Amino acid sequence: MAGNSIGKALVFTSFGESHGPATGGIIDGFPSLITIDKNFILAEMTRRNPAGYPFSTGRTEADDIEFLSGLSGDITTGTPIAFLIRNHAQQPGDYDHLKDLYRPSHADFTYEQKYGIRDYRGGGRSSARATAAWVAAGAMAKILLARHDIRVWGFVSQIGPFRLNDDTTVTMEEATTTSPLSCPDQSVTEEMLKFLEQTRAAGDTAGGVITCIISGAPAGLGEPVFDKLHADLAKAVLSIPSVKGFEVGSGFAAASMTGSRHNDPFIATDGLISTATNHSGGIQGGISNGMDILFRAAFKPVSTLAMSQHTVDRNGRPVTFEGKGRHDICVVPRAVPIVEAMAALIVADHLLRSRCGKE
Amino acid sequence: MAGNSIGKALVFTSFGESHGPATGGIIDGFPSLITIDKNFILAEMTRRNPAGYPFSTGRTEADDIEFLSGLSGDITTGTPIAFLIRNHAQQPGDYDHLKDLYRPSHADFTYEQKYGIRDYRGGGRSSARATAAWVAAGAMAKILLARHDIRVWGFVSQIGPFRLNDDTTVTMEEATTTSPLSCPDQSVTEEMLKFLEQTRAAGDTAGGVITCIISGAPAGLGEPVFDKLHADLAKAVLSIPSVKGFEVGSGFAAASMTGSRHNDPFIATDGLISTATNHSGGIQGGISNGMDILFRAAFKPVSTLAMSQHTVDRNGRPVTFEGKGRHDICVVPRAVPIVEAMAALIVADHLLRSRCGKE
Amino acid sequence: MAGNSIGKALVFTSFGESHGPATGGIIDGFPSLITIDKNFILAEMTRRNPAGYPFSTGRTEADDIEFLSGLSGDITTGTPIAFLIRNHAQQPGDYDHLKDLYRPSHADFTYEQKYGIRDYRGGGRSSARATAAWVAAGAMAKILLARHDIRVWGFVSQIGPFRLNDDTTVTMEEATTTSPLSCPDQSVTEEMLKFLEQTRAAGDTAGGVITCIISGAPAGLGEPVFDKLHADLAKAVLSIPSVKGFEVGSGFAAASMTGSRHNDPFIATDGLISTATNHSGGIQGGISNGMDILFRAAFKPVSTLAMSQHTVDRNGRPVTFEGKGRHDICVVPRAVPIVEAMAALIVADHLLRSRCGKE
Amino acid sequence: MAGNSIGKALVFTSFGESHGPATGGIIDGFPSLITIDKNFILAEMTRRNPAGYPFSTGRTEADDIEFLSGLSGDITTGTPIAFLIRNHAQQPGDYDHLKDLYRPSHADFTYEQKYGIRDYRGGGRSSARATAAWVAAGAMAKILLARHDIRVWGFVSQIGPFRLNDDTTVTMEEATTTSPLSCPDQSVTEEMLKFLEQTRAAGDTAGGVITCIISGAPAGLGEPVFDKLHADLAKAVLSIPSVKGFEVGSGFAAASMTGSRHNDPFIATDGLISTATNHSGGIQGGISNGMDILFRAAFKPVSTLAMSQHTVDRNGRPVTFEGKGRHDICVVPRAVPIVEAMAALIVADHLLRSRCGKE
Repeated sequence: MAGNSIGKALVFTSFGESHGPATGGIIDGFPSLITIDKNFILAEMTRRNPAGYPFSTGRTEADDIEFLSGLSGDITTGTPIAFLIRNHAQQPGDYDHLKDLYRPSHADFTYEQKYGIRDYRGGGRSSARATAAWVAAGAMAKILLARHDIRVWGFVSQIGPFRLNDDTTVTMEEATTTSPLSCPDQSVTEEMLKFLEQTRAAGDTAGGVITCIISGAPAGLGEPVFDKLHADLAKAVLSIPSVKGFEVGSGFAAASMTGSRHNDPFIATDGLISTATNHSGGIQGGISNGMDILFRAAFKPVSTLAMSQHTVDRNGRPVTFEGKGRHDICVVPRAVPIVEAMAALIVADHLLRSRCGKE
Repeated sequence: MAGNSIGKALVFTSFGESHGPATGGIIDGFPSLITIDKNFILAEMTRRNPAGYPFSTGRTEADDIEFLSGLSGDITTGTPIAFLIRNHAQQPGDYDHLKDLYRPSHADFTYEQKYGIRDYRGGGRSSARATAAWVAAGAMAKILLARHDIRVWGFVSQIGPFRLNDDTTVTMEEATTTSPLSCPDQSVTEEMLKFLEQTRAAGDTAGGVITCIISGAPAGLGEPVFDKLHADLAKAVLSIPSVKGFEVGSGFAAASMTGSRHNDPFIATDGLISTATNHSGGIQGGISNGMDILFRAAFKPVSTLAMSQHTVDRNGRPVTFEGKGRHDICVVPRAVPIVEAMAALIVADHLLRSRCGKE
Repeated sequence: MAGNSIGKALVFTSFGESHGPATGGIIDGFPSLITIDKNFILAEMTRRNPAGYPFSTGRTEADDIEFLSGLSGDITTGTPIAFLIRNHAQQPGDYDHLKDLYRPSHADFTYEQKYGIRDYRGGGRSSARATAAWVAAGAMAKILLARHDIRVWGFVSQIGPFRLNDDTTVTMEEATTTSPLSCPDQSVTEEMLKFLEQTRAAGDTAGGVITCIISGAPAGLGEPVFDKLHADLAKAVLSIPSVKGFEVGSGFAAASMTGSRHNDPFIATDGLISTATNHSGGIQGGISNGMDILFRAAFKPVSTLAMSQHTVDRNGRPVTFEGKGRHDICVVPRAVPIVEAMAALIVADHLLRSRCGKE
Repeated sequence: MAGNSIGKALVFTSFGESHGPATGGIIDGFPSLITIDKNFILAEMTRRNPAGYPFSTGRTEADDIEFLSGLSGDITTGTPIAFLIRNHAQQPGDYDHLKDLYRPSHADFTYEQKYGIRDYRGGGRSSARATAAWVAAGAMAKILLARHDIRVWGFVSQIGPFRLNDDTTVTMEEATTTSPLSCPDQSVTEEMLKFLEQTRAAGDTAGGVITCIISGAPAGLGEPVFDKLHADLAKAVLSIPSVKGFEVGSGFAAASMTGSRHNDPFIATDGLISTATNHSGGIQGGISNGMDILFRAAFKPVSTLAMSQHTVDRNGRPVTFEGKGRHDICVVPRAVPIVEAMAALIVADHLLRSRCGKE
């Protein structure tokens, strides 16, 4: 029982290897009669393109998307929307030296243990390359959500040891202001840039944290007890390569808070009920409460290093291998659209799901 | 589309409200010919019983479990195993003062927004009472896993600001040594006890962190790209009431580590491949690598306080209400078996799932 | 991967063996705020009770149903509705002579091959006893459908070689007119009764056909290309023990019709579009068209005979065994409520599903 | 909640419209390390190509298949296998006269009712064109089944009123003997050909029945009580356009048989248990018993006629329209590979599923 689909009412099925012919997917359950702006989708895809970021691999992925079904012109018809993004510039020879060894903290070993075979070219199925299609699918979900005034934005709140003082009040406008690292604070950005420069000089890599905020979600999204909204968000976000942690609202900080400080009192303004604080992160009992939904995703540092590393090959023989070619020093900035995409897919799924139970 | 089932090959469907007739569930897909030790299941259920813990509600739930199907004597037959745990000592009158108001950081408001109705007695469906059945189902999963030498153990690694120095090397034996707070370190336990005493005196409550370790899982469990093992663990653990964060292996700490420090080099001992360190937490690319699986769950402080709180009622009118009756100061210690149960269900599900694809 | 759940938005999970403690189930996804009339449910359950039928086993199942969750009084709360029906009058000793042999055309052999064990008492999980709970779940679905003026009725259109001339125009009133065999035509009923009398005298059993009609379903239910409405109806109806065939509308007769005779021309009356004929059985391209939905289910004759039969035991040794006790000569009349229940569950599921995709 | 996926362990998701860019799909859960013979897949696709059949539309679909993922060379890697089949020779202008009217017994009206929009070119999503991809997916399933000596073959057992005397003993060799109508009996074929000639002359169309046999399936496949093997086969086969009925084994004929004649006595030969007759069609209690699995699918006559027909347009105005262009007189012969494909997908799914529950 494989697991390449996510969502129950809006189901996205992903396919594709890093160096296969294409990556892409099928979106099933997308409502009909919605106009799809292909340029918006391409713009979202460009946001994860390494070309736009310092400290990213220099490889330019001039991605285009081809829709294969589900559209009449640019209008959705309610039938499954299949799309593909061709892979370019494959140089299989580049990877021959990796085909028998297990790179540390990559999925080489586990894929081989599971399937008895792996596509070693560029990480194969485990490559972040597949997320190009996730971003495209997420862009579709964003188009659906925007019709309901639901917005999703992410930003970098930490790289290495440098972090924002307060990530809970960043607006969509602030988040999307051009910044080389997608971090809304200029002075923190400068520290991060210095840190990344040093990291690169050392042949090393860095991790970080992305904060994501969803505004406009109506109260009532989420399906307890096992498809709670934050549980589904966690699953989706932890599917992104390199993510090691997820927290909603107060998250791990809640562990050391007292109840009297953590509780969010309800208040009413002109008859509209909201909460005075938002430690809940917009979700209570697994159901959205109408406040901004806020979560964070922790990314480990990039596993591919410029320095030489020790590991073993398929036969358990010790191997030392050198870092080759250009690679990312830190993927967190370009992972922002991926986090947003997965969040958008989950919220859109729950928006559609919430309609089933209404009489 | 409700969401009261979890798992794909081993499917657990949960039912029950805090003050309804019973809580329980159906386990579908449990293999046949396995002997079920009912005493083990009852013992696991007792581990989450408030009676066993200081700083917990004094209510004793002398729970018994009734199996309704799926067993021939104590042998599983491969058919669905339904079971129920009767609720006792329901005093509906106790809750009348809550039926029109929205308690801060409880699910009163969101359930009512979603369903237009809520069972206000003891939290209804959102109550942790339902987890009695989760623990029973998890105990069944543990019986299945034990046949494959897979063990699951959790322990309290943090309460309030007090935490273990190192939670990564705690053995099953250490974790299950009797401790009033399920914390394997005696001096930390003493600090926690003092802190909880002060918290109680202040009419307040506390949160904490549970660390869970799974040993013996074979390499190859997990179904990328969307049913990755840690993603499914996160979803299951975040379904537990009060959990606000999840991390696997290095987790959020990974964000400030460099790649050269974080990477887990592969080594081979007598032909057996393992990793020298385990920042990956036993999972790489969403698939288990044969090392111990380690994750953490952050619990917010208990929302029910002994002090008076401000909130609003259904009509948006401000209300002040007093804490009544005995309640938990900190649920983290008795949540350990719940975390273990959800972990066991997920690992058992993936163990069965992994057999599908094998030729 | 077991398969004891049916439906995607309205999910019914079934449990229970013939001679275990209880049969029952969980309905997940039932909308909130609906009043459940328990007497209606009991009345539906009585319709499948053998006591009410000639040529049925004399065993009286004075079934009662206990709801365990999901209701506040008699109002649904949107949470899972669990219920159980206790099994009575179990006399395990009655079945000892069957425990090692494989009864012809029963599921003894296949259950044992699949699970390595079987509950041989009264057919265990394969017994039609489990359908008591299906009828209860179907009654819940009927309550939901009735709010939308959707009605489901079945009737016996054939027993042995005797059949109705035209089963396509039978009204709900005609179908529910008291008839000992649930057949709306009195003279055909008399022929059937005579035939069943002869069959009983010969120690033999009979099969038949049930026709089921669903009125009031709006156009637009059904989810091509794999969850077509008639495909899901077929799956649900073929889950009923003894059903060997399913057809919608013209069914097998369509094979020998010409297109010019089979096609249903669209007509409009006062702006309302319908079809002049209904060979489509109310479903075109897998989607309801607003006309009456009509399907048929073929039942094989009862496998338990009053005469002696030859078969083999677990070790392949030839065995002759005698029919014992009272049993059904023909189950078709009391299977009518079961067919209706499965149809109601599927239509209710699709009614809820159809809301997901609407913008 | 759309429904374009089928299977649980081997999941096939379908996409594509008749006149869109391509049809195709994703197969998730296909085991790794299996060699895929692309020529076999193309050969299967050719079997449904109208070019090969008399009384079929003259349109030649010179289909090619492109694999986008999941293969390393021609070896499966365990990751999702995406593929596409480009549509050719689209002449959109041909369909303009149909875009406002509802063709009798087509899905024009129901798609428009459901989605508010339809792709009217060649039937859009409801076209049998999509089954090209189903046949490709089914061919993959056949490759998997062949490794376990499971074979699937279908043949035409009825066209119009002409049918085989006995379709239960047709061997794979007999079924695949070249016959213009895929009917293994020469004299019946001649009658069918004559009948189809007359039908064409009258501007009319014909239906028929396909019988499908699966040999070599081990005892134990099928997941009661709702994913019974024959129930899943029925759902899959009724997904095929034009299918109106499904029966397994004795099917509708069982309704008029007595139990003593219908029962299949178990016998043992050299310790191997089988049944003396096979009215069960190889399935008992929803689980395969090791005998040949046999089912039948009834096809209605083609809805597109050469003669003029009356219907209404979107506004309910009466319209008379003429048949245009070349079309199929009878699709039953070229539907044989489609029936086989859906059967192969279901049996392969259950083969994989059966491994989950094994200890």
